[in-house]
Amino acid sequence: MTLVRVEAGKNIKGAAARNKGFQVPGFLASVTSAEVKKGNSRSDLGLIFSEVPAVAAGVFTRNQVKAAPVQIDLKRIVQQEGRAVLVNSGNANACTGSGGLSDARKLSRQISQALSIPDSQVFLASTGVIGQRLPMSRMIKAVPSLIQSLSPYGLPLVAEAMMTTDTFPKIVSKEMNIGKQKVHLVGLAKGAGMMHPNMATMLCLVLTDLAVSPALLDRLLRKATDQSFHRITVDGDTSTNDLVLVLANGLAGNAVLDTPQTTGARIFSRALDQILLKLARMIVQDGEGATKEVIIRIEGTRTEEEARTLAMTVALSPLVKTALFGEDANWGRILAALGRSGVPFHPEHVDIHFNNIQIVKNGVSKGPKAETRAGLVLKKPTLTIRIDMHQGTFKTKVYTCDLSLDYVRINADYRT
Amino acid sequence: MTLVRVEAGKNIKGAAARNKGFQVPGFLASVTSAEVKKGNSRSDLGLIFSEVPAVAAGVFTRNQVKAAPVQIDLKRIVQQEGRAVLVNSGNANACTGSGGLSDARKLSRQISQALSIPDSQVFLASTGVIGQRLPMSRMIKAVPSLIQSLSPYGLPLVAEAMMTTDTFPKIVSKEMNIGKQKVHLVGLAKGAGMMHPNMATMLCLVLTDLAVSPALLDRLLRKATDQSFHRITVDGDTSTNDLVLVLANGLAGNAVLDTPQTTGARIFSRALDQILLKLARMIVQDGEGATKEVIIRIEGTRTEEEARTLAMTVALSPLVKTALFGEDANWGRILAALGRSGVPFHPEHVDIHFNNIQIVKNGVSKGPKAETRAGLVLKKPTLTIRIDMHQGTFKTKVYTCDLSLDYVRINADYRT
Repeated sequence: MTLVRVEAGKNIKGAAARNKGFQVPGFLASVTSAEVKKGNSRSDLGLIFSEVPAVAAGVFTRNQVKAAPVQIDLKRIVQQEGRAVLVNSGNANACTGSGGLSDARKLSRQISQALSIPDSQVFLASTGVIGQRLPMSRMIKAVPSLIQSLSPYGLPLVAEAMMTTDTFPKIVSKEMNIGKQKVHLVGLAKGAGMMHPNMATMLCLVLTDLAVSPALLDRLLRKATDQSFHRITVDGDTSTNDLVLVLANGLAGNAVLDTPQTTGARIFSRALDQILLKLARMIVQDGEGATKEVIIRIEGTRTEEEARTLAMTVALSPLVKTALFGEDANWGRILAALGRSGVPFHPEHVDIHFNNIQIVKNGVSKGPKAETRAGLVLKKPTLTIRIDMHQGTFKTKVYTCDLSLDYVRINADYRT
Repeated sequence: MTLVRVEAGKNIKGAAARNKGFQVPGFLASVTSAEVKKGNSRSDLGLIFSEVPAVAAGVFTRNQVKAAPVQIDLKRIVQQEGRAVLVNSGNANACTGSGGLSDARKLSRQISQALSIPDSQVFLASTGVIGQRLPMSRMIKAVPSLIQSLSPYGLPLVAEAMMTTDTFPKIVSKEMNIGKQKVHLVGLAKGAGMMHPNMATMLCLVLTDLAVSPALLDRLLRKATDQSFHRITVDGDTSTNDLVLVLANGLAGNAVLDTPQTTGARIFSRALDQILLKLARMIVQDGEGATKEVIIRIEGTRTEEEARTLAMTVALSPLVKTALFGEDANWGRILAALGRSGVPFHPEHVDIHFNNIQIVKNGVSKGPKAETRAGLVLKKPTLTIRIDMHQGTFKTKVYTCDLSLDYVRINADYRT
């Protein structure tokens, strides 16, 4: 499950060969540069192909403004079958009107014809700038080289080709035994800014050779997404392009899983939960400009919904996030954020811990010594802020990052 | 109605004398340095005193975590009478428990005894760091000098003493005739970060010699606040300390206004609206790190509530705000923010203008020329982004600013 940095673009075969951990039987993948951003020769187009028909499940952005590829995928996912995923970075193909939809359909047809598969089994994923048409001639010209270079070692290269402002590719794998069969699971993601529950410029592709019914796969994916991508936030913005897509091709040869109560389903479900949470946390750790990952843990609420509302309000507060960047244990801003969440509570009952250092007891400071010690906790790359509301038994956790100078630099410059 | 920069601390009398525009008959004011922040000799304590009993109305933070002075003011405002306001910067006296409440009561008693007025007619306003107790001995020691230096010219000095991260004092005045009487109106505010509807580290004090019933004053204040402070946002955070307080001492001698339908009430109401909107916009223009003021105008919605939700989602989006800082006419981020607002609409009907330059028509770009011209609009210190949803007849306006590197610098360093 270690992450291997891939030098894309140069010596692809050598790099791919070093990434043998990230293979799933029956899945091939490849990348190329289509210069989606003109003059940029980094690999920006990736293809994943299942040699046999695969069960498909997906979760898509809830943003009403949906990119062309998402609009197409939403229609295709109802069939619950997939054979290929074409992904590009550099251009989101969002807010491009009917022209953008027709571009996406053309690309899909190129892939389905080249691979001799039904067009409806090609899924599309795009990320990058909003509002510009895709450079269709360069992309279509790149398709033959994509097809030719398909290989079992290509998945890490796709993780790299999906990156926009990500600083490292995100790919994790897990193997498990289900019955007597070995089952493989690999997840790829891209993240960075615009991440928020209900997702955001976040693409996640999951490949497995598990044999599973479409209904169960869908159910397990929704549960895993709710526990992972719906618990992270970088800036509260959500994107037009987000998707989590799973293809399961059944080549592991296990008895087809179709109810959640079986041992096999429980094993796979746990593995999927782990993989998605690991990818989600990688996205937060690589949040635009982030210098630290912060886990906001709310305890002692009357409902889980209340815990989530409180946690999200703290996790999204610019004042809390800039204080985290400044490594200032500014608990007053945390209390102020809780106070505007809309959840009723008694400020004088609230306790706050930074890791195991209690900084607030009954709504007031534990004193300068505690603040100094909490300040040291803020120097860690990952820390937990635990807030006990003392009015119930529910709790939740969300994952966020700090708001840094680099977040502003990256997003003020993104298009230029 | 021009703003005069006051050099507080040195040569107070001279500076005050230059500010003759900001006087209201019967109101005296003064400032001093209590070193609320130890070792800092800037003026940080201000007093306003009405020589005769005045009608009082107030609007206070909706944050559940309320600072000690706000808790006290909320009890006193029900009597609708006030004689004095004591305001300090440097320390918010928030999240300070019962000790903080007792500190605030002690200060109030010092003032009421020195001025021989009922303790219940002293209002308190604090702004600054949360969670630290006030330096009571230094503050109490400063009271006699405050009382001795009360003068009709002191209001601009109080505007200066209230500042925290503000870069300029905010004070405006207006005169009007009601019947045959001249009525004076002066408003002082402090703002900067943590500003949001339902207010935020925002203090606003309004003084007038109007004769008005408490009920009408309260009604007009709520209307003016809704059209001004509830329409501005810097970062979505709201504070524990916000308040807008009006004192009306009746010395103008007009026939007491007590219904909104009279000409006099309409004249005063318009003046109050203008003053509060002007102060609110000054706060946005001086938002922490702000380089520009941006008016988000939403048109063509089915309800005003929808217009407000859409406008606020755009006004608070970190991605939109960093693009504004980068002077990038990134309309895709605006559409994406609208799309996650929760308000249903058709993306393909949306038009977006930057001032008079249309950049989006029917949800897609008007092309590179329009984008270049819109980019020029972004170089202006104030601009309007006008968004037409084309599904109704309601509209609204909110005022926001960009999210800059300095916002992060200021808030990462605030306590250190």
